[in-house]
Amino acid sequence: MKRVGESRIPNPQSRLFTWPVRVYWEDTDAGGVVYHARYLHFLERARSEWLRAGGIGQATLRAERRIVFVVHRMELQFNRPARLDDLLEVSVAPTDLRGASFFVNQEVRHAGAADALLEARVRIACVDSDTLRPRPISPDLLREMTTT
Amino acid sequence: MKRVGESRIPNPQSRLFTWPVRVYWEDTDAGGVVYHARYLHFLERARSEWLRAGGIGQATLRAERRIVFVVHRMELQFNRPARLDDLLEVSVAPTDLRGASFFVNQEVRHAGAADALLEARVRIACVDSDTLRPRPISPDLLREMTTT
Amino acid sequence: MKRVGESRIPNPQSRLFTWPVRVYWEDTDAGGVVYHARYLHFLERARSEWLRAGGIGQATLRAERRIVFVVHRMELQFNRPARLDDLLEVSVAPTDLRGASFFVNQEVRHAGAADALLEARVRIACVDSDTLRPRPISPDLLREMTTT
Amino acid sequence: MKRVGESRIPNPQSRLFTWPVRVYWEDTDAGGVVYHARYLHFLERARSEWLRAGGIGQATLRAERRIVFVVHRMELQFNRPARLDDLLEVSVAPTDLRGASFFVNQEVRHAGAADALLEARVRIACVDSDTLRPRPISPDLLREMTTT
Repeated sequence: MKRVGESRIPNPQSRLFTWPVRVYWEDTDAGGVVYHARYLHFLERARSEWLRAGGIGQATLRAERRIVFVVHRMELQFNRPARLDDLLEVSVAPTDLRGASFFVNQEVRHAGAADALLEARVRIACVDSDTLRPRPISPDLLREMTTT
Repeated sequence: MKRVGESRIPNPQSRLFTWPVRVYWEDTDAGGVVYHARYLHFLERARSEWLRAGGIGQATLRAERRIVFVVHRMELQFNRPARLDDLLEVSVAPTDLRGASFFVNQEVRHAGAADALLEARVRIACVDSDTLRPRPISPDLLREMTTT
Repeated sequence: MKRVGESRIPNPQSRLFTWPVRVYWEDTDAGGVVYHARYLHFLERARSEWLRAGGIGQATLRAERRIVFVVHRMELQFNRPARLDDLLEVSVAPTDLRGASFFVNQEVRHAGAADALLEARVRIACVDSDTLRPRPISPDLLREMTTT
Repeated sequence: MKRVGESRIPNPQSRLFTWPVRVYWEDTDAGGVVYHARYLHFLERARSEWLRAGGIGQATLRAERRIVFVVHRMELQFNRPARLDDLLEVSVAPTDLRGASFFVNQEVRHAGAADALLEARVRIACVDSDTLRPRPISPDLLREMTTT
């Protein structure tokens, strides 16, 4: 049951960020469709742009704070293929932002379409750029990540 | 309960095929490690070589029988990174070969090492190369896939 | 010798089309810079967008007219590296549009910068998508290619 | 004029090193052939293996001597396409090893075939891994590079 006023309380972690991606020759394979590994590039571009929209440049983050985000786990469901010249949009819905890791639910679809071509659940860890050991996400970084 | 003699009956679907992969500059990123999407290339090379070892060329399979194998689902666990010049080995352990799909359990490790850098569970579908609709794996193709 | 008034006649083949490209992790290597082969992707995206701006979709061109453009020759001069998060712009200046091939002069630079990071001269051939044999560029296709 | 015995003196810079490369799905595009930029990967793998055959590991070279080799210029002639499952061989013929740079002539062909699918002339510079400024190739490094 929906509580009164719930819709007025924004949940920063559930808002949807989307990023457009065009399919070029580089993305396709001899089967005539997008090569499956290329979707991981698309997902990562969208996550990078989601961070950038929050004011986070990853090159700066690494140089100045010695922090990098790394993929620790992925679950990928490939529903239907994309093809050359297709215009796609990639969504970014972060969840469980706490400690040194978080999840991102992502979908790839044709621009404006309802059905997802690909559904992904990605677990990202925040690590030290030198040691690659887990680094808790600081309050100020968390604030940037949730203001997109 | 284990039946007498069971351990002596080889299970053709559980035998381990491995394929060596060298890490080149193309595989790395500015974090100094292998870019996460590149492991999907390594996994796919190993699956292609597993098929080739069974006498199955995928270009021929597509041209003569209109069959392609496509990735439908992946679960990936990234444990530790590989780096430039590393020599890796990628395992291929197919399971549940029936109907129009099967699973492949795969691991990437440093050559000769015990710990897996990456663990993957991949669901592959056998589809018609034109329509991309499911095509049951024929008995003779299944025989080739299990004689590696 | 330059003829009188020549400079006043606009040459449609020399107008400059540019396309923005952002550098992501996928584009970098362990040296901390953009992997040299990735610039060929950037060059090709810009050429694809130049064609699209003229109303030419390459997937359609292949499906309906059996025509594909292929790279026959490249000269590449790498001046300085690009890095993660850099915003680049890629220029497209076609020349010698005649017969079944043409040249494209291209440069990659930081957005708004004067110096080119990469200078390229690319010879493109127009070929039959089935036989890969040269196909003269038809007058109507040429018109589309020169109205960008 | 050829001096007596000259043919018995091996010229270390003109001997031909070759490296096998198999074409996988990752290398192809929707045109059904190898994507043009992928040949740069093949060329670079062969150069890396040529260095490795001389005892030079590039990760070690970078970590211990702060030296990296970068591509400064390429001339590429694409003659005919390679396709999925093709077995290729890539040659490495270094020339003009002096100062802080050298050239490598390379060809890609079907294994055992006479005709080159791709002909490349690559200018490589030896640079400092931090500053990316030219670093003259030291006599001992040069010796390793010419003992392959």
